[in-house]
Amino acid sequence: MPWAGIGKVDRKYDGTNLRVGIVHARWNSEVIEALVNGALDKLKELGVKEHNIIIESVPGSFELPTGVRMLANKVDVVIAIGVLIKGSTMHFEYISEAVSHELMKVQRFMRKPLIFGLLTCLTDEQAQARAGLTSDGHNHGSDWGAAAVEMAVKVEEHPTLW
Amino acid sequence: MPWAGIGKVDRKYDGTNLRVGIVHARWNSEVIEALVNGALDKLKELGVKEHNIIIESVPGSFELPTGVRMLANKVDVVIAIGVLIKGSTMHFEYISEAVSHELMKVQRFMRKPLIFGLLTCLTDEQAQARAGLTSDGHNHGSDWGAAAVEMAVKVEEHPTLW
Amino acid sequence: MPWAGIGKVDRKYDGTNLRVGIVHARWNSEVIEALVNGALDKLKELGVKEHNIIIESVPGSFELPTGVRMLANKVDVVIAIGVLIKGSTMHFEYISEAVSHELMKVQRFMRKPLIFGLLTCLTDEQAQARAGLTSDGHNHGSDWGAAAVEMAVKVEEHPTLW
Amino acid sequence: MPWAGIGKVDRKYDGTNLRVGIVHARWNSEVIEALVNGALDKLKELGVKEHNIIIESVPGSFELPTGVRMLANKVDVVIAIGVLIKGSTMHFEYISEAVSHELMKVQRFMRKPLIFGLLTCLTDEQAQARAGLTSDGHNHGSDWGAAAVEMAVKVEEHPTLW
Amino acid sequence: MPWAGIGKVDRKYDGTNLRVGIVHARWNSEVIEALVNGALDKLKELGVKEHNIIIESVPGSFELPTGVRMLANKVDVVIAIGVLIKGSTMHFEYISEAVSHELMKVQRFMRKPLIFGLLTCLTDEQAQARAGLTSDGHNHGSDWGAAAVEMAVKVEEHPTLW
Repeated sequence: MPWAGIGKVDRKYDGTNLRVGIVHARWNSEVIEALVNGALDKLKELGVKEHNIIIESVPGSFELPTGVRMLANKVDVVIAIGVLIKGSTMHFEYISEAVSHELMKVQRFMRKPLIFGLLTCLTDEQAQARAGLTSDGHNHGSDWGAAAVEMAVKVEEHPTLW
Repeated sequence: MPWAGIGKVDRKYDGTNLRVGIVHARWNSEVIEALVNGALDKLKELGVKEHNIIIESVPGSFELPTGVRMLANKVDVVIAIGVLIKGSTMHFEYISEAVSHELMKVQRFMRKPLIFGLLTCLTDEQAQARAGLTSDGHNHGSDWGAAAVEMAVKVEEHPTLW
Repeated sequence: MPWAGIGKVDRKYDGTNLRVGIVHARWNSEVIEALVNGALDKLKELGVKEHNIIIESVPGSFELPTGVRMLANKVDVVIAIGVLIKGSTMHFEYISEAVSHELMKVQRFMRKPLIFGLLTCLTDEQAQARAGLTSDGHNHGSDWGAAAVEMAVKVEEHPTLW
Repeated sequence: MPWAGIGKVDRKYDGTNLRVGIVHARWNSEVIEALVNGALDKLKELGVKEHNIIIESVPGSFELPTGVRMLANKVDVVIAIGVLIKGSTMHFEYISEAVSHELMKVQRFMRKPLIFGLLTCLTDEQAQARAGLTSDGHNHGSDWGAAAVEMAVKVEEHPTLW
Repeated sequence: MPWAGIGKVDRKYDGTNLRVGIVHARWNSEVIEALVNGALDKLKELGVKEHNIIIESVPGSFELPTGVRMLANKVDVVIAIGVLIKGSTMHFEYISEAVSHELMKVQRFMRKPLIFGLLTCLTDEQAQARAGLTSDGHNHGSDWGAAAVEMAVKVEEHPTLW
């Protein structure tokens, strides 16, 4: 009964042998770029080699699940990054919901973990803060990079049932 | 690690050899017509040949996923276009949600990308603006045409897992 | 590139050889009866023969998808008709959502089109208006009958992928 | 074209040869007990024999779909009974939605009908009224018992496609 | 027709021969730790042996379903524990919904029961109360431990259809 310490990180992870895919939408490019860079920095910090990282883009967040499928055969884990901002129609709600469900399910088809990097914000400022672009912000891309390495290592260690 | 520039378009796409399907609902016909024409103009601009474009209609947005299935065997990518406007009952909400989810999933069955051209608007004016029918509007059909060519090219380039 | 005129109906449909199923719930019987009759009138107007129409009922809207399955092997298209009215609990919301999603999906299992005849209304008056029972109302059953014939004809004409 | 009378019950049903499962959660026990008894009374009234009724319980409503699976191989139809009351967190909403969807879908795996006996109430009083525990209440369990017999008979009569 | 008493527990359960997995997210660590300990205490009280309990963690609640899959082959039932607190964006809503649906569905793939230990709270205080960390609180982890033993025993006793 290994009782891992409960906190931000449960142990050290080594990404040296991992292949990681990043798929990002291109709307809200400044925020997206910061998030992708945040993820990249963390991946490298954890030992992932540059030539083992593939980055691909898709036009918008609805295309993210298909973008994930493009990379699924080449990598051990995929980070899907998109930024949705509430507008005056209900587009935000229906896209957010459909994409969230499919990003969850795509793991079954890939038989690999997916890191959910979709920001669903009510304002531009919320998105900027979550990309570390405000003085009190924090770049969530960094968390996603860490989660990608951890999940890829863990599903390998366990006899994971997909 | 190809780091594609993050912006509106990541590179040039050539639709010369692509077959594209457009399925549209027929409610709110003026808006639909503008959106379909916006998509057509962009497709041709990107090299898609007229005889490689198939257009089919269905009565309403609930029928869009079945409409997509009608064209799935004939084309490389499908654009599904519909316009839902909030009314006094909850019809808008349940249709929008069911259609959004199914348009996402239908890609798995087609093993081809689907471009989400469903406007889910609270007012007629919102729909008109998104079809370029107002002075400050922008025709989203144009974006969908571009996304269709890009996604069809990309899933072909990658060993996409469906 | 056949560019069908965008409007209420895109062309004439002939239901002479079609078999159509109607499944209806029995709550709000006056409204249901008007809707079913509206659908029947339109089906016959489009040439569907009486002996090729099967009507079956189920107790409530939650049972509609199973009702659809009962008729799936006997017909070319099914119209599912139910009337849900918002009450004081959240029953309306959860039933409406679960039924909407399943009526969408059941098409995959039937490999046949389904016409969505579920009214999700906030008041009794809204339901009556949509069944043509008010002076300014319109019987949606008529639209559903037309959609059934159109969709059955169209999926037959195309090499539809289910 | 059999046009069944539209009303509360479309004809007489005989449960003499049916096997019925009832799965209930145990939260809000007074209400649950009344609902289960209401269903039992109706089942017996329609001829279902006591030794053909199996009752099983699960801790809460989230476990209802798995409870249904426990009985699926032993019976012709299952009634799933639970009572969810809105609390201060969002637990009610997410449980109600996940359970509603899965109770709908479980019919596909069972290839048998499921009667939805989940009350999703905003107050205790609403639940009591729907269990016939208030002066103006009505025991919904009775309706569910009738629906179970009807649906089991009907799916048997039709060449139902699951 | 065994009519089990309706109340908090329907009978005594023995976990002596059960293998139980606990997967927990690591956000809101104080609350998570209390919930995990509450579950552990109850599991042991019901006879589950320490060497038959596996605990694994994942970064956040979105990763819970994949975490469940990691343990699925090693245990008879899994408890998934996470704490989501409403923030200023819509992240809470989309994560809560996607995770709830997938935790429900993962039971089909595991062919084993899953206990839903996801708190979806509007405030930190609500989470603390449900982890027994306030004076009037109650540790839900204890209920989840009891439910895990009950469900594992029951699916074994019945010819459960997955």
